[in-house]
Amino acid sequence: MPLVTITMLESVSAPDQRAIADSIHQAIVKAGFPEADRFQRILKLGTERFIFDRTHPDLSVPRSERFVLIEILLSAGRTVDFKKDLLAAIVENLGQRPGLAPHDVMGVFIETARENWAFASGIQTYIEASAQS
Amino acid sequence: MPLVTITMLESVSAPDQRAIADSIHQAIVKAGFPEADRFQRILKLGTERFIFDRTHPDLSVPRSERFVLIEILLSAGRTVDFKKDLLAAIVENLGQRPGLAPHDVMGVFIETARENWAFASGIQTYIEASAQS
Amino acid sequence: MPLVTITMLESVSAPDQRAIADSIHQAIVKAGFPEADRFQRILKLGTERFIFDRTHPDLSVPRSERFVLIEILLSAGRTVDFKKDLLAAIVENLGQRPGLAPHDVMGVFIETARENWAFASGIQTYIEASAQS
Repeated sequence: MPLVTITMLESVSAPDQRAIADSIHQAIVKAGFPEADRFQRILKLGTERFIFDRTHPDLSVPRSERFVLIEILLSAGRTVDFKKDLLAAIVENLGQRPGLAPHDVMGVFIETARENWAFASGIQTYIEASAQS
Repeated sequence: MPLVTITMLESVSAPDQRAIADSIHQAIVKAGFPEADRFQRILKLGTERFIFDRTHPDLSVPRSERFVLIEILLSAGRTVDFKKDLLAAIVENLGQRPGLAPHDVMGVFIETARENWAFASGIQTYIEASAQS
Repeated sequence: MPLVTITMLESVSAPDQRAIADSIHQAIVKAGFPEADRFQRILKLGTERFIFDRTHPDLSVPRSERFVLIEILLSAGRTVDFKKDLLAAIVENLGQRPGLAPHDVMGVFIETARENWAFASGIQTYIEASAQS
């Protein structure tokens, strides 16, 4: 149950916005998460409220108006390779649909203990035991 | 000083929104935090910007339009039981007011070092010493 | 590449909003981050969506309508002194421009592994190796 927060400028079109959300989720499913573990939040902000540097020295071309910032909150314990592969899949998917350039994608993983995820099912509530991680 | 971020659909009514915020804070106070430690942020998003699966296999009934996602940023060091009890109290309170079903509540704790909380009082600024944790 | 999220009430003026963002970034640059590492997100919320206690017992004067909450997501590994100095610089800068009182500034650091930051440059994607931290 990763929680994905996607921040983009207000100028991104509705179809592109939907394609971005879908492409990210497809990469997450490909990484092994269940299809039903979809929890996405999209923040669309004006240029005065989403400020990012367009010309970072590490970039060969400047970031564009389509730049997306992707925060993925997930349980701790994944390997660096897992995270690397997930990012690569996200970048690849976004390149295909809606056609974002790699330099317009930034991702960051935030990790929390497995026990910290909690939801209620029926009348019973539960919290995953840390022993299960 | 937990920081609570509550995400819900735009369709949630203003009275329900207020009841949700109040019920969550009451659970937090019951868990031992001071009444004055109230820092809540409510994000109301349209269905295109808050995407969640309605029919997770673990759920006996589908999530509704009233589904709320609750992120609680707090200092590390709480026990699993503490967090479990806090979640149970939140679900119980939300069940009473505004009457949310348990399957419409999802929570996640994000932990940060005790030293990472900082606020300024008068002309003096301080940061809690990690030694105090 | 710290990611800075600044939450404030909707009533904050556009010039003050910009000054707040700039002053925070200047403190971050002063702390040693590259000028180009600017990633800021500003959330402006009405009083019903940004709820904070005005009269915390630790405060000699109540918080005002200009209260700002600053979340800084950064790589783990910084010392307490580093974080303390960064906070002090932020408070000082905000005091000069736009003239916020110290009790109207609250900050919290959220730390993530160095390896968790990822962005794509050109056609190549990378994720910082944890070995580099």
